[in-house]
Amino acid sequence: MSTWKLNYIGKKPVLRSPILIEGLPGIGNVGKIALDFIIEGLGAKKIAEFQSYAFPHSVFVNEDNIVELPSIEVYAKQFKKGKNDLLLLAGDVQPLDEESCYQFSDTVLDMAQELGCSEIVTLGGIALKQIPKDPQVLLTGNDKKIIKEYQSSTKLSNKLYGVVGPIVGVSGVLLGLAARRKIKAVSLLAETYGHPMYLGIGGAREIIKVLNNKLKLNLKMKALEKELTELEQDLTENPDAGMQRRSLAKLRKGKDTSYIG
Amino acid sequence: MSTWKLNYIGKKPVLRSPILIEGLPGIGNVGKIALDFIIEGLGAKKIAEFQSYAFPHSVFVNEDNIVELPSIEVYAKQFKKGKNDLLLLAGDVQPLDEESCYQFSDTVLDMAQELGCSEIVTLGGIALKQIPKDPQVLLTGNDKKIIKEYQSSTKLSNKLYGVVGPIVGVSGVLLGLAARRKIKAVSLLAETYGHPMYLGIGGAREIIKVLNNKLKLNLKMKALEKELTELEQDLTENPDAGMQRRSLAKLRKGKDTSYIG
Amino acid sequence: MSTWKLNYIGKKPVLRSPILIEGLPGIGNVGKIALDFIIEGLGAKKIAEFQSYAFPHSVFVNEDNIVELPSIEVYAKQFKKGKNDLLLLAGDVQPLDEESCYQFSDTVLDMAQELGCSEIVTLGGIALKQIPKDPQVLLTGNDKKIIKEYQSSTKLSNKLYGVVGPIVGVSGVLLGLAARRKIKAVSLLAETYGHPMYLGIGGAREIIKVLNNKLKLNLKMKALEKELTELEQDLTENPDAGMQRRSLAKLRKGKDTSYIG
Amino acid sequence: MSTWKLNYIGKKPVLRSPILIEGLPGIGNVGKIALDFIIEGLGAKKIAEFQSYAFPHSVFVNEDNIVELPSIEVYAKQFKKGKNDLLLLAGDVQPLDEESCYQFSDTVLDMAQELGCSEIVTLGGIALKQIPKDPQVLLTGNDKKIIKEYQSSTKLSNKLYGVVGPIVGVSGVLLGLAARRKIKAVSLLAETYGHPMYLGIGGAREIIKVLNNKLKLNLKMKALEKELTELEQDLTENPDAGMQRRSLAKLRKGKDTSYIG
Repeated sequence: MSTWKLNYIGKKPVLRSPILIEGLPGIGNVGKIALDFIIEGLGAKKIAEFQSYAFPHSVFVNEDNIVELPSIEVYAKQFKKGKNDLLLLAGDVQPLDEESCYQFSDTVLDMAQELGCSEIVTLGGIALKQIPKDPQVLLTGNDKKIIKEYQSSTKLSNKLYGVVGPIVGVSGVLLGLAARRKIKAVSLLAETYGHPMYLGIGGAREIIKVLNNKLKLNLKMKALEKELTELEQDLTENPDAGMQRRSLAKLRKGKDTSYIG
Repeated sequence: MSTWKLNYIGKKPVLRSPILIEGLPGIGNVGKIALDFIIEGLGAKKIAEFQSYAFPHSVFVNEDNIVELPSIEVYAKQFKKGKNDLLLLAGDVQPLDEESCYQFSDTVLDMAQELGCSEIVTLGGIALKQIPKDPQVLLTGNDKKIIKEYQSSTKLSNKLYGVVGPIVGVSGVLLGLAARRKIKAVSLLAETYGHPMYLGIGGAREIIKVLNNKLKLNLKMKALEKELTELEQDLTENPDAGMQRRSLAKLRKGKDTSYIG
Repeated sequence: MSTWKLNYIGKKPVLRSPILIEGLPGIGNVGKIALDFIIEGLGAKKIAEFQSYAFPHSVFVNEDNIVELPSIEVYAKQFKKGKNDLLLLAGDVQPLDEESCYQFSDTVLDMAQELGCSEIVTLGGIALKQIPKDPQVLLTGNDKKIIKEYQSSTKLSNKLYGVVGPIVGVSGVLLGLAARRKIKAVSLLAETYGHPMYLGIGGAREIIKVLNNKLKLNLKMKALEKELTELEQDLTENPDAGMQRRSLAKLRKGKDTSYIG
Repeated sequence: MSTWKLNYIGKKPVLRSPILIEGLPGIGNVGKIALDFIIEGLGAKKIAEFQSYAFPHSVFVNEDNIVELPSIEVYAKQFKKGKNDLLLLAGDVQPLDEESCYQFSDTVLDMAQELGCSEIVTLGGIALKQIPKDPQVLLTGNDKKIIKEYQSSTKLSNKLYGVVGPIVGVSGVLLGLAARRKIKAVSLLAETYGHPMYLGIGGAREIIKVLNNKLKLNLKMKALEKELTELEQDLTENPDAGMQRRSLAKLRKGKDTSYIG
């Protein structure tokens, strides 16, 4: 089993009972797209990076024509009093095999507990057989109380039983392992098209809206919407895999400039 | 290699030379269905749970719309004097790869020995090319004496040589490793249809009957038969994979309510 | 990586600079068939057994209707003065992956050195696209001198360069790793039909002849030939996979009766 | 995870801020062919060899009809004052899986740092959909300064962003991990035909020319060109996989005769 280790950049931040939001690659990359936009929109700061020998053994050439290893990073956003701070788990990949996924998720939860995390939100996609015109966001979780709370404020459906298959990967395992530590966690799953090359921008947009309202993020939704629309157009004109990478890379540009100390 | 660890819930129970019955998922899920019904029918109590990073890295949404990690659990049933107690090994999955299977099986045997286990019964299916109308149960084991004893009281055939291929997974490896520890073990294998989506309810029913007679379990066979028939009808009407999961989940509802201390 | 450990049965035998012959399953099972017949013909005695979590996670039902785990075993044959004793490495499987194969082979070589082994002979098959009428045995090795010596006494060709692909598995890796320890080793490779279900009895017969002459084994070739012909007929009449297993199992019956102390 | 260990042959050499060039098998084997020719042309000496259980578990028969295990080796070339010495990483295989690749690359970098390595050049191929008539060499790296320096002296293009996919394997991961250690590194990638059986001799020729000029290697280019042309003709006449191996083996003959002490 390959192990995942978290390296903080500088000192560990002091956060006010932060909510951890996870958005790693997955079905339609819905969770990743949503979280990358939120990180950019909030100007969140990178506080830690995962180190492992289990990353894909390849580098990609970035927009500066410099090679980069894939990475998984943790960002933080501190708010003024009266609102929970945020921990944001984003990255280029997610652990591929069972053991890697469990060990990674436990490392994430160690961090969450260490930083006083109060609840967890994981993001993901539900694969449909065609492109949904009006993608719905569905809700599940590891605890009746938190599901009810999210439900009453978001009006999302949580009738997933018998409707969806297993939730695979970090978005699912985090919920299960968090339950064992008595950390409440929900998952927001947006409908998307289940094609390996399809980017679920529509689903990501809906998730962003839900989080913006529920967590009062004050995101500049107009600007975000514009960027999302541009990204959708880029992809329509040039639906290459390389294109996807570029567009996503572009989104994340400028995020690494400052640090929480 | 991922390791499997057994965590007791509360104190280890004191049992009277218990018989260990294993019924994990496998061909037609015959063993799992049979054992889940027996656990429910006996009102057996969960005494331990396996912990491992080798479980599938996914959660499923249960009938309460709450996510659950897959699990492997040990139940116990204590009887009045004059009868062996039971240890029942049930779960949603079984270890997938060779090493995982061996290490898991050795951990099961450590527990078995620690709790004074006197013999082992593993349950499984034999895959046929069509649905058997009248599924037979066949018998094998790791020791001539125990095979003879089961044979004389159950009238089952043990002429498996040249008839069946290897017995794959925990149901087989437990027999082999138990032999090394001089623990006698048999395997009850019910004929079933070898289709990946087929649930071997008919075969499970036959195994339950055999065990009920042989071990004098006093199961309410009428009620069980009714439940099995209902399950069969559910599946005929809605043969989805999700359906299977639901039906099995339903069966196991209510099992986790009490503990042996 | 799973490790392979060798457990001696009783005391380690004292042998006169033994030659180690390896014949594990492989192409056409040529090496396995040849060595199983030789072990039976010589009445060699089991001296050790490999233990590992990397064996296939299944048991098979043997001719006594008892389940058995797959095994890899070492046999020894002691001769009167003037002839090298033999160590014979036989089994139901061979290590499947790279690391397992290397670690297993190093464990074999540790034993070989400990028991004063003077040279190594590995057995295998060369896969042809049709059944060879008159299968040839070819020769290679890890050292010019031993190749020459075998060549001059057996008249076998060693012109394998550019003719055969890599020698995969224990038969190959043992040669390579033995070279690092300065142990001379050859490989006898018999032509056989490269079909997964084909048993290379013809090739095995030729290897047995070569070894019988070269190592002066005094095998009762008539009886062996008769057994091999019977086996061939069995297989022609009933070419099932189960059949193969049975026939091979039959061959090996009676081998486990006595031990070197 | 299997580990890779480096064993020095004799004492570690003292080198003048050596440049490490890596050329292991990969797309079109471009990097391997180029580096094998350079090692032969320079008369570089073997100084170390990798040891691992993760090599392919097979041996091949070499041109002397002796079996050989696959290997990965480090060669060194010492020059007169005024020029950087060279470390050359060549071999028959490269680590196959993610973890193996990372651990191997870190071991290479440990050696590089220990021997005072000043910069790293990795070699590879870019797979095209047809055979390129005039294969171009492209340039990337882990640092703007070194890319600029190579660009100004070689006139190679570094506009890889959006043009090539990820650089997979040691050639890529070395760049990424070297960045973390503040070692500057570039990759020279030659266009080649992306067919699994195609040997990218044309691309290798271009890489050799670039390195010969840039690093002032004083290779006898005429003789090398002749050898490359011969190799190309051999392959045209006899495009077997075995042939490839032979031709490459031939190239490397005579390299192992002397050692740096």
